[in-house]
Amino acid sequence: MTLKVSGIFSGHILLPQLSVMMKKSFQYQLTLIFLLFGLSLSAQETALNLMPVPEQIEMGEGHFVITKRFSISLTGTYHERLAHEATRFLRRLDQKTALFFDQHKVSGERTNASLTITVERPGEVRLHEDESYQLRVGTESIELNAQTDIGAIRGLETLLQLAGATNGQSTFPVLTINDSPRFHWRGLMMDVARHFMPMDVLYRNLDAMAAVKLNVLHLHLVDDQGFRFPTKAFPELLELSSDGQYYTREDLDDIIAYAHQRGIRVIPEIDVPGHATAILVAFPELGSKDTTYTLERYSGIFDPTLDPTNDAVYDFLDQLFAEVAEVFPDPYFHIGGDENLGRHWNENKDIQAFMKANNLATNHDLQTYFNIRVQKILNKYGKHTMGWDEIMTPEMPKSAIIHSWRGNWEGLVAKQTLYDAARAGYETVLSNGYYLDLMMPASQHYLVDPAPADMDLTPAERSRILGGEMCMWSELVVPETIDSRLWPRAAAVAERLWSPEDVQDVQDMYRRLAIISLQLEQLGLKHISSRNVILRKLAKSKDIEPLKVLVEVVEPMKGYTRNTNGTLYTTFSPFMLWADAATADATVARVFNEDVERYLSGSLEANQLRTQLDLWSKNHKKVLPIINRSPALLEIESLSENFSRLAVIGLEAIGLIESGGKPSSGWVTQCQQVLEEARENGGRTELQVISGIAMLVDELKGL
Amino acid sequence: MTLKVSGIFSGHILLPQLSVMMKKSFQYQLTLIFLLFGLSLSAQETALNLMPVPEQIEMGEGHFVITKRFSISLTGTYHERLAHEATRFLRRLDQKTALFFDQHKVSGERTNASLTITVERPGEVRLHEDESYQLRVGTESIELNAQTDIGAIRGLETLLQLAGATNGQSTFPVLTINDSPRFHWRGLMMDVARHFMPMDVLYRNLDAMAAVKLNVLHLHLVDDQGFRFPTKAFPELLELSSDGQYYTREDLDDIIAYAHQRGIRVIPEIDVPGHATAILVAFPELGSKDTTYTLERYSGIFDPTLDPTNDAVYDFLDQLFAEVAEVFPDPYFHIGGDENLGRHWNENKDIQAFMKANNLATNHDLQTYFNIRVQKILNKYGKHTMGWDEIMTPEMPKSAIIHSWRGNWEGLVAKQTLYDAARAGYETVLSNGYYLDLMMPASQHYLVDPAPADMDLTPAERSRILGGEMCMWSELVVPETIDSRLWPRAAAVAERLWSPEDVQDVQDMYRRLAIISLQLEQLGLKHISSRNVILRKLAKSKDIEPLKVLVEVVEPMKGYTRNTNGTLYTTFSPFMLWADAATADATVARVFNEDVERYLSGSLEANQLRTQLDLWSKNHKKVLPIINRSPALLEIESLSENFSRLAVIGLEAIGLIESGGKPSSGWVTQCQQVLEEARENGGRTELQVISGIAMLVDELKGL
Repeated sequence: MTLKVSGIFSGHILLPQLSVMMKKSFQYQLTLIFLLFGLSLSAQETALNLMPVPEQIEMGEGHFVITKRFSISLTGTYHERLAHEATRFLRRLDQKTALFFDQHKVSGERTNASLTITVERPGEVRLHEDESYQLRVGTESIELNAQTDIGAIRGLETLLQLAGATNGQSTFPVLTINDSPRFHWRGLMMDVARHFMPMDVLYRNLDAMAAVKLNVLHLHLVDDQGFRFPTKAFPELLELSSDGQYYTREDLDDIIAYAHQRGIRVIPEIDVPGHATAILVAFPELGSKDTTYTLERYSGIFDPTLDPTNDAVYDFLDQLFAEVAEVFPDPYFHIGGDENLGRHWNENKDIQAFMKANNLATNHDLQTYFNIRVQKILNKYGKHTMGWDEIMTPEMPKSAIIHSWRGNWEGLVAKQTLYDAARAGYETVLSNGYYLDLMMPASQHYLVDPAPADMDLTPAERSRILGGEMCMWSELVVPETIDSRLWPRAAAVAERLWSPEDVQDVQDMYRRLAIISLQLEQLGLKHISSRNVILRKLAKSKDIEPLKVLVEVVEPMKGYTRNTNGTLYTTFSPFMLWADAATADATVARVFNEDVERYLSGSLEANQLRTQLDLWSKNHKKVLPIINRSPALLEIESLSENFSRLAVIGLEAIGLIESGGKPSSGWVTQCQQVLEEARENGGRTELQVISGIAMLVDELKGL
Repeated sequence: MTLKVSGIFSGHILLPQLSVMMKKSFQYQLTLIFLLFGLSLSAQETALNLMPVPEQIEMGEGHFVITKRFSISLTGTYHERLAHEATRFLRRLDQKTALFFDQHKVSGERTNASLTITVERPGEVRLHEDESYQLRVGTESIELNAQTDIGAIRGLETLLQLAGATNGQSTFPVLTINDSPRFHWRGLMMDVARHFMPMDVLYRNLDAMAAVKLNVLHLHLVDDQGFRFPTKAFPELLELSSDGQYYTREDLDDIIAYAHQRGIRVIPEIDVPGHATAILVAFPELGSKDTTYTLERYSGIFDPTLDPTNDAVYDFLDQLFAEVAEVFPDPYFHIGGDENLGRHWNENKDIQAFMKANNLATNHDLQTYFNIRVQKILNKYGKHTMGWDEIMTPEMPKSAIIHSWRGNWEGLVAKQTLYDAARAGYETVLSNGYYLDLMMPASQHYLVDPAPADMDLTPAERSRILGGEMCMWSELVVPETIDSRLWPRAAAVAERLWSPEDVQDVQDMYRRLAIISLQLEQLGLKHISSRNVILRKLAKSKDIEPLKVLVEVVEPMKGYTRNTNGTLYTTFSPFMLWADAATADATVARVFNEDVERYLSGSLEANQLRTQLDLWSKNHKKVLPIINRSPALLEIESLSENFSRLAVIGLEAIGLIESGGKPSSGWVTQCQQVLEEARENGGRTELQVISGIAMLVDELKGL
């Protein structure tokens, strides 16, 4: 017999008076403890909705009741950012509870405060800073203690997630949390080059990053499609290569200050020597081919490349990097270094001669020669080099950070370059597996661990794995849609990078993700609301219910398949279309497929499935008139029809299963035909209920 | 017998070959014409969804089909902003049609373009600039002709609104439009002092303003609650009086450039001598009372006032105005001048002595003395004075613009100061009746006309009425909610200020407003999506259907009643609450009340009402569990209950009416009791279906 504790995360929870650290098979142990001690800890009470899960939780009894007199006191020695962040916390809690707090602003010590924050020393926004904190919620007061104000800021986010309601009052549960991150580098890369992202996008995403304890924003500022750094030395780059879209110095100062306020570092990337079209549009003489260049509008890997044999290239980079180094205070500087196929090098006789003269056998050797010179420039400005994993060559100094991105898609083993780098003595950061733009479900990214316990590295090597960074490449992403491409999935990866390794329960991750997703919306993110905005646009109406039913069971085409050959879309294509209303996790479809399994295993009644399938079977009839007045929706006509056809099959299958009947001759074959046709994309999205329907059909196969 | 042409706006439409200008009782004439000529112009074809309605439309036959090859050519002499705006039009049309246009950028002349824009001369972003245009859509090509590029930009917005669909293709209807604005000053004032509005709010609202042809953004930069102008001369103002929230010079430059791109002027307001708390916090020595000041957090009219007898005040204003004048190129400069009760003047012996010595009998005389000195400072910087209507005194030079705001609420007759100003020789702008923050329905603002034909002014006096300006005071408005407080209602007022006087059909205004509202959302406005964002926050869930049903039939308390005595809310109060999810026009309630009338007059069956009332009667049961887990929703418990009780009464009444039965003894009295109780606000909102239910009850009264 087991006591069911549904929805509890597989974290580390200590029950009152039970200061035993529990690892693994947690639910089972908790069940045991319930049985042994006869505690009446209800699912409701224990299902903390925290993300990321803290390192250690000790549950207490009762609640702290939040009232209008809620107040905060700051003690110890801290950076002024703490007062700002504590004030922001106060306002967010007031917004959440609607209590109209008497205190409006947090500034230093006050007596009898509800929440006392004690900090040992001012934090620095730098790699390896202490972010640990301890949170003690009692019935009468709350203490938040941390080494640094940055740790305290992490703790405030935890406390805000704990705010709930008990008997009509807003409350925090009594508990003690000891928490610190598993990895020090918990990043998000935003590609602001391919599609420029305005300030408000960066602001609200920094708020969201802080909410789930991410601490590095990496800005990919330059690529073939655009140059976004406000260089004073080379105004031609902004005039010719930005389409008028770039950050000003003041913008970048503001972004960095805003990020630092939240304990988030900002790393710039100037991608060289490949991905150089934007630079070469303005300065073709720095290129490896004697030609002129036009700004790239398509997606892919292109040939324009800086000429590593030309001293003018290094003079240019010296001046440019000096400017970038001046704006970004972080000691790490990302030089890209990826995806240079070297075609223009092969074609250039002078470059070939240079290689021969300098004993550079391969293009990779030539790029290494380039990287070493670039690395010396950065040293001059006090910066460490960071680069995509192609920069890892024997000559690269060990002070560089290797950014591991290649994996199966690039013919390598996932995480191979990460481990190779760590073994070779480099610090390293993982991005392979964290490419959110590929539109894979959260579960897939969630289970990618940069340093699982069973990997084959020495402790010293392990210590060089700094953490991970999500990538949001923006070929198909615009300011209006980026939030729904990032969130809530980024919160799941944030948990992987912060929480203990054994926090692995995918079901519970999805349960909490749905809750955290709603909280993120309150920071101004549009990841939930943008769907209906797009559907209203497509339908030219507020009546979008049938479209919602359909969009909830599709996902955009995965990987790079949505953009066939990189030429289906250009920079200027419309990106508020059907596929942009779809998200990477079609929750309704996932739950349906799980329900079918439960039904077939006898743990779910047929009725729930029938009601859903009945609605779906009639959906196409409701979608058709909308399509008829909206030419932009013509692309989903077959998709919508296939969806309703699948539902009809599902209903027929359930009917047969329930009645114990036998399908008519040819029925299974017909169904398989429909299932096959339903795999075709519609509006660059794919139906996600096929596996569920197929299971139902399969059940009748042998009869 | 009449031919019903539903949904047509009462504008000026000329049918093909019928170049007769039709005014008034248009529907009747059109009906006649249909009967006379037997034309088969369907409602579908004629119901153009334009807002504002153009001056003159001549309908043609057929459509221009929009394809992937749609292209634009610019000819004539124009300001470079036209290329930018034509490109923006191109992208918006591409987004709307999802055709993936070949042309990405508009830059000068090209042959065989789909749309040719011809402009006579570069426009200037100034008062009285020519904004007229002529649009000819043919089946094969489109011509847009204008005196200035600003006129052409207005025409592009009209063309975009005309884009529709015919037989699965995106099309424009064949027609000719001749259009020009009725008033030259079509403004929107945003109070960015009481609640600061970040850049993204201004950007998207400028886009929306351009979409409905508004042309003045008036920024109220200073008030008791905050100082938002980036003065270099007086950094204390930003340090002490802004809570860290103000625009930088670069911000204001960006806003002005962004507005000018769209042909929109930007007017600054520095409100003096009253509303001066923020200034006096930093410089108490400039005040009329020997005291120190703290930044105001409440709403209302406060005493802190600059001392008009102190020369240092004029030195201060001279330096400050020099800076403001430098940033804002427009020749008009708003000095506020409103709501100074002069209490601190009365209390100050030196000021009283000064008044005696200078023969200033009243506080108004003293303020005039102040205004004249201020006006001279502005003259020095080449600026005309604009001020709220209190500045109108005999000594004020006629170059000033009088901004008419006082009306019934202030003990005056509406528009009296407007007409007085025009008669006295001042140019004048109307805001009374256009205070959108009062949360009155669109219809009420829509019918306020600054210069109806029947007013008692000479043509010369009439010509001084420049137009109108909506006001969005921000005591109860934050960046997250301002869009839904402004839009779509602002579009209705925009029509009043642009379209011919006799465009007055409220029903048709509401019909078009719903369509334009959806188009405005595509510009990034949150006026539609913010409701669900707030409801999800309050419900802590995505399941908000019962809350939506309720919020759709309530409106926030009107006028200044929501904020009792100005002290219920402070600057820092939460403003994403129930009342913030409600909007000024509860469309569902309005339509319900109309339906009841139709039912009682025999033109609507009972069933439709019954279905709606049945849903409503059960709604409270669904709302209750949501309230139980959300303390922030406790304030709507009675409201929700009253709503369902009203629905029960409605159902009972219809039952009796349908059966011809007689209500039981006391039933009517009981109902009236419930109706009375239902008038009580809940969550600072009021039910709007009371009149409909009351009509049903009244029907049974005498029986």
